[in-house]
Amino acid sequence: VKPSLPKGTRDFGPEAMARRQFIIDSIRSVYARFGYQPLETPAMENLSTLSGKYGEEGDQLLFKILNSGDFLKEVDLDKPDQRSASRLTAKIAEKGLRYDLTVPFARFVVMNRNEITFPFRRYQIQPVWRADRPQKGRYREFYQCDADVVGTDSLVCEMEIVQMIREAMNALSLRDYTIRINHRALLGGLAEVCGFTQKENDLFVAIDKLEKAGEDAVKAELKERGFPADKFALLFSALATPGSNEQKLAAIEQTLKSSKHGLRGVGDLRQLLDLLKASGTGDEHLDIDFSLARGLSYYTGCIFEVKLHYVAVGSVSGGGRYDNLTGVFGMPGVSGVGFSFGIDRLYDAMAELNLFPPGTGQSSRVLVAHLDAPAFRYALGVLARLRAAGIASEIYPDPAKVKKQLEYADRKKIAFSVVIGEEEVKTGNLTVKRMETGEQSKMKIEALIHELTSE
Amino acid sequence: VKPSLPKGTRDFGPEAMARRQFIIDSIRSVYARFGYQPLETPAMENLSTLSGKYGEEGDQLLFKILNSGDFLKEVDLDKPDQRSASRLTAKIAEKGLRYDLTVPFARFVVMNRNEITFPFRRYQIQPVWRADRPQKGRYREFYQCDADVVGTDSLVCEMEIVQMIREAMNALSLRDYTIRINHRALLGGLAEVCGFTQKENDLFVAIDKLEKAGEDAVKAELKERGFPADKFALLFSALATPGSNEQKLAAIEQTLKSSKHGLRGVGDLRQLLDLLKASGTGDEHLDIDFSLARGLSYYTGCIFEVKLHYVAVGSVSGGGRYDNLTGVFGMPGVSGVGFSFGIDRLYDAMAELNLFPPGTGQSSRVLVAHLDAPAFRYALGVLARLRAAGIASEIYPDPAKVKKQLEYADRKKIAFSVVIGEEEVKTGNLTVKRMETGEQSKMKIEALIHELTSE
Repeated sequence: VKPSLPKGTRDFGPEAMARRQFIIDSIRSVYARFGYQPLETPAMENLSTLSGKYGEEGDQLLFKILNSGDFLKEVDLDKPDQRSASRLTAKIAEKGLRYDLTVPFARFVVMNRNEITFPFRRYQIQPVWRADRPQKGRYREFYQCDADVVGTDSLVCEMEIVQMIREAMNALSLRDYTIRINHRALLGGLAEVCGFTQKENDLFVAIDKLEKAGEDAVKAELKERGFPADKFALLFSALATPGSNEQKLAAIEQTLKSSKHGLRGVGDLRQLLDLLKASGTGDEHLDIDFSLARGLSYYTGCIFEVKLHYVAVGSVSGGGRYDNLTGVFGMPGVSGVGFSFGIDRLYDAMAELNLFPPGTGQSSRVLVAHLDAPAFRYALGVLARLRAAGIASEIYPDPAKVKKQLEYADRKKIAFSVVIGEEEVKTGNLTVKRMETGEQSKMKIEALIHELTSE
Repeated sequence: VKPSLPKGTRDFGPEAMARRQFIIDSIRSVYARFGYQPLETPAMENLSTLSGKYGEEGDQLLFKILNSGDFLKEVDLDKPDQRSASRLTAKIAEKGLRYDLTVPFARFVVMNRNEITFPFRRYQIQPVWRADRPQKGRYREFYQCDADVVGTDSLVCEMEIVQMIREAMNALSLRDYTIRINHRALLGGLAEVCGFTQKENDLFVAIDKLEKAGEDAVKAELKERGFPADKFALLFSALATPGSNEQKLAAIEQTLKSSKHGLRGVGDLRQLLDLLKASGTGDEHLDIDFSLARGLSYYTGCIFEVKLHYVAVGSVSGGGRYDNLTGVFGMPGVSGVGFSFGIDRLYDAMAELNLFPPGTGQSSRVLVAHLDAPAFRYALGVLARLRAAGIASEIYPDPAKVKKQLEYADRKKIAFSVVIGEEEVKTGNLTVKRMETGEQSKMKIEALIHELTSE
């Protein structure tokens, strides 16, 4: 039998792993510098925890785990009502795979509410699983990379998220991007002044398509859903308000002056700009964009999304404030704000822009090659010295022609080969070959270590 | 509904995570220094990949994933032969959760045989899932931490494994331990000279219990299984051969002189000692122990296991050489050797011995506290300076009494608090409180950064 992978899943070999690890380590170090603490939750959750949290479509996309042992023990297959897939599932599967990191986080907070010190800042970097139809760039297993703070409604958290995004992007050498930001209450106010309050969610879902589908398509959708067209001029000119961030806020303030809700949104965004100024970092990369809506229904405050310029990978980060994440588990009134980076998209963008530092994905820096048995023994000592100096190194483990050993170094992109023969054993003067150029030189082990550690 | 975790699974909160991360990072950095490269495989594998690889008991312990959609479509529940749990499973579940890292690694090697440069050194640190009955110290989700090299039978690999174990233990400050080592061919030779060749596997399983159950219990088991007792004296005196590693090998060589197989084992162990000597590291911590058998049937060469002294956590590492890992996937003749660390056991041992570096599990090092609104604004600038210097810091995000802010720092074990009021805003002379001692001092931000980065 030829082995294969389940569809929609991937192996990450050495080079991909090293690059992914670079991205994850960069983001993790930013999270940690901002006082966020790590959390990991199990891959499996009870279906009672997961079901009903992601809408009907989400429930369909949950991977469910068959109960262990004789899972049919309690099932009477002669009863017709137990014979549909959905009824039977309820009887034979109690657990499912994590669908995102947000619901497990909410469950964790509720279960540990008495031990947690609030405000609680946590980050979590783990895979999630969705039974989506696999397609280009969409996988059934993929990493999420979340940071959330719960237990405070201070806009300092939003300010810090903007800063963390900028520092992470900087660490990844991504320079050309925009952090789009908006506020759900501001959008709600806009719905209010347009008289669209009844169908707020339909409105947000339609607005969310504005950038991709264009104004005409969104207008058509709104018409179809029964929105009166006489308010479209007001709505779409507000969504496209031009100017600097301050100018946009001043303009929309006028539009929303009759909506308390809307003005709260304007006030929050203004305060966010002020906090950024007070912290000395300003609004670089930040673009207040009233047409940003984001799909998820649980956002209640600021929302944001990060868009790269010049690469078409979709948004690489996004998030927002929510007011009732833990309510569904019986702990109401916990405000929080969170965001997430998309590792796969960052990876694709960095690969396209050639931004991975040279050497990412390399294994050893030195291969120790040997001409004969005495050279091999001597090489073991050289190898031990290199490793003791913290230099990732390896020896070709079998007796083989030097040509073969150097080919191995080439294929593994090992930068240096040390070739040891009778002469080197006698004098301790090692032959060092820089693989890229083929350039050779003679030096003692101490000199080689010095060169490699001071590079 | 009160939320809960599936039995046998765990959340890892901030402190546990930081400690686990310390262990994993330490081990990973050793693997990397020895030229091992990272690999990750998907959580889900096809059941055709997993089934039959772990014995009948293992098959029972696989977590199986219900097919998505209408999984009953192809099932005729009126046919009695499709109504047993095992028959039905085959129809409704095609995928299972990874049970270990070895089989996915073998699958990866076979699927990528044309791209891989052999010898291939890989490490892999990921969770695995087993539907074991949960009990103290045994979980249904736990991390494995494997390193394997395939495509060479050089004993240099075994030498390096001994060295990697020592370096990892050293990085974790674990000083009192023994690396027990033996050889399957040597054990096979012993079976041969005792006339036990027919039931070699039963013999190894019984010997494996020697340390825990004692000689009498093992003798009783062997008797029950029909081993002739007249050879027990020869067997058990060989298993308990005393002396230095060299003395043990010399003694067992005499016992095994009629067994070619056994002498190969002796030769390999002797060569391993010689390689260690050549690399300048000797046989510290190494104990050749002929009573080490290890349960798994696929080992064919050197086997080893690491036992801590003074803490009863079981073996924290183990592994061995195998000759046919990939044969089951149609790629015969690939020799390899691998080993693994047990993160949970290392964690328990380090916690018991109090070996985690001070500060592991701390979040921020500095809390910036504030007395009023102008102080809050000023504090944001201080915060930005600290973080820019790489010092993990946070601000209490809400206006609150200073007492409450300092209590927050205390509960989160944050080492320093900077308290900012009118005076500090005016002079830039910050009040810095060392939380453990309560000691206060006044200093400029530059001095604080200097103190914290040079500590």
